[in-house]
Amino acid sequence: MGGEKHDQEYMKKVNKQMVLQIIKSKGPISRADIARITSMSPTSISRIVGELTELDLVQETEFYSEGVGRKGMLVNVCPESVTSIGIYINRDIVQLGLVDFCGKVVVMNTIPIEPDHHSIDEMLEKIVTGILVLKENPNYKKIIGIGVGMPGIINLEEGKVIFSAQLGWKNIELKRLIGEKTGMKVIIDNTEKLRVLAENLYGASRHSNKSALLSVGSGVGSAVVIDDEVLRGVKNSAGEIGHTTVDPEGMLCECGRRGCLQTYIAESALLKEANKVCRINSIDEIFGAAENNENWATNLLERAAKYIAIAINNIACMYNPDTIILSGRLIEHHPLIVNLIEQKMSYIWEPYEDTFKLVYSELKDEGVLIGAATLALNTYFELN
Amino acid sequence: MGGEKHDQEYMKKVNKQMVLQIIKSKGPISRADIARITSMSPTSISRIVGELTELDLVQETEFYSEGVGRKGMLVNVCPESVTSIGIYINRDIVQLGLVDFCGKVVVMNTIPIEPDHHSIDEMLEKIVTGILVLKENPNYKKIIGIGVGMPGIINLEEGKVIFSAQLGWKNIELKRLIGEKTGMKVIIDNTEKLRVLAENLYGASRHSNKSALLSVGSGVGSAVVIDDEVLRGVKNSAGEIGHTTVDPEGMLCECGRRGCLQTYIAESALLKEANKVCRINSIDEIFGAAENNENWATNLLERAAKYIAIAINNIACMYNPDTIILSGRLIEHHPLIVNLIEQKMSYIWEPYEDTFKLVYSELKDEGVLIGAATLALNTYFELN
Repeated sequence: MGGEKHDQEYMKKVNKQMVLQIIKSKGPISRADIARITSMSPTSISRIVGELTELDLVQETEFYSEGVGRKGMLVNVCPESVTSIGIYINRDIVQLGLVDFCGKVVVMNTIPIEPDHHSIDEMLEKIVTGILVLKENPNYKKIIGIGVGMPGIINLEEGKVIFSAQLGWKNIELKRLIGEKTGMKVIIDNTEKLRVLAENLYGASRHSNKSALLSVGSGVGSAVVIDDEVLRGVKNSAGEIGHTTVDPEGMLCECGRRGCLQTYIAESALLKEANKVCRINSIDEIFGAAENNENWATNLLERAAKYIAIAINNIACMYNPDTIILSGRLIEHHPLIVNLIEQKMSYIWEPYEDTFKLVYSELKDEGVLIGAATLALNTYFELN
Repeated sequence: MGGEKHDQEYMKKVNKQMVLQIIKSKGPISRADIARITSMSPTSISRIVGELTELDLVQETEFYSEGVGRKGMLVNVCPESVTSIGIYINRDIVQLGLVDFCGKVVVMNTIPIEPDHHSIDEMLEKIVTGILVLKENPNYKKIIGIGVGMPGIINLEEGKVIFSAQLGWKNIELKRLIGEKTGMKVIIDNTEKLRVLAENLYGASRHSNKSALLSVGSGVGSAVVIDDEVLRGVKNSAGEIGHTTVDPEGMLCECGRRGCLQTYIAESALLKEANKVCRINSIDEIFGAAENNENWATNLLERAAKYIAIAINNIACMYNPDTIILSGRLIEHHPLIVNLIEQKMSYIWEPYEDTFKLVYSELKDEGVLIGAATLALNTYFELN
């Protein structure tokens, strides 16, 4: 059906990316082995490795290939030669880091945000200062661009925050604002899409081709990556599971409708419910109360676990992934909720029980930042 | 990231498919115009058109191109030169048809299935007889293969029915069974995936790149097509929205869990509910009662419309399509339910209200059959 015309230039680029990918995943590796894996000619491989070496992306190592034939020096990536800046904006912290092109965070700074100080002006000042600090790090010269992850509906092409309930932002041209103040290329995306991208490349689902992620923290979201492509939808907002209805007569949601998934599992929702019973200031206090066998806390967390299991079922039914990653602060910081969720697997429709592996975020708090930096790198680092 | 090596052969095939696609959508068209649209050389276009002519797929017309330059005869498709057989299996009918390569049904037969006569043996005999009748039609000589659509979880590669609640089939090697008895190539897929494929190519969403379909009839299902690719998931069962939980304390479903979407909207569920009040034999009777303002019927349909609206919201949130197609017998045969659904749009989360067009199936009852035949054609008709 239709399709683009595959010309020489395009093939060259694809081949170069493939060779780099192989060196990343299998290096140190000989040119001969790369030729064997790719079915390309040794001459082409030598040319491409030469080009990648000139870009400082790969280098020859001290190792030589074994086996018969002429001995060749093995090549490997130089991951830190090229970096990008990843930024994770949330309502209570901003994380900024330099990430190398193998997904490793080489420098990271965290800026706390005080309650009710998350207006765009206050946040932007802190973000820009943080970027300038990273830019001046003498160890990393080649910084390709900036990737920003934040909760909400983000127009990826325009770099515009359409709507973020958690930050209270609406129609903010964040790409332009950061770009103007730093002179760097900027790309913005939604937190869950970046988390799943990072887990898919470097974390819990790196052996999967079709993985979905459910994140539960101050907000609730999901995202899917299929054959290395994030499922975006027409407005980059596929995966907004927090506002799927799981009980039409349920609790009122901030969106004005009833029984949205997030009203049962988002941290803010749990805090509101808990405060109907006693004065509670943090999620940790709820878990503490549950560990002391206080009934209200156990009930609240049991219900949260049930609705998380329902969300897992609905994700399995809708996307049929081979892996479902649970992530987000509520899950990553509280082993108790993990136990409770695993006791609720009867909420999964039977034919799907064995279709996916349930795994937990490996990158945890750093996932958004790594995903954001990687997206910037993939977008702005053109292998020409 | 990774990617396949695009070699000459592959490019040739892509180009040939592209030229055929252009002639299909824009014919009658001159070779010069095809060259202009594709940016390919006139020589290449003449060669490809020649090859397509030899395959009987295109022909020269009586028309000549206008404008300056050498006059050339316009070419167009000969849609009926190549056909495939489409089959739609349901618990109460089997439809069989010959479909040309522009998606037109040129012959169609419907076989009614009596209640409780849908065992695989009884059905297979009827299906094979139906296929042989079509095969012997003297007007259509070049029949490429058979596509079968049926409700349930289907292993596409193996052509195996893993599980169909509606037909009561489990682990049936349908592809092998039909193939052995007819000597033809057979491909099997799930009804909703075929419906959305057909609507995307020839029906209600042909101008969309990201469309989702919700089907409500004897069962409930959904499917998504993104840039001409059906979203399949790892076991070809993405889209099983009928078993997403929309109320954990809701009605008991045949799957053993509570509050699955289908318990509120599937025809069988509506009939069961209706029969709690009075003796009702068909969905038509429920709609008749609602038109006579019988309270129980109005309530039942109002509730169904509400849950269909919730399903639309959940589809929008999860897939973020630009088009949502409503299809299936309950919707296609009953204008009243359409009115009721459109009154429930407050169940859609506000940020999504304007992100999709709500449309209705254009191919209706023929959608599965056309989708199945088209899948067979795309799969077995290799343009070498």
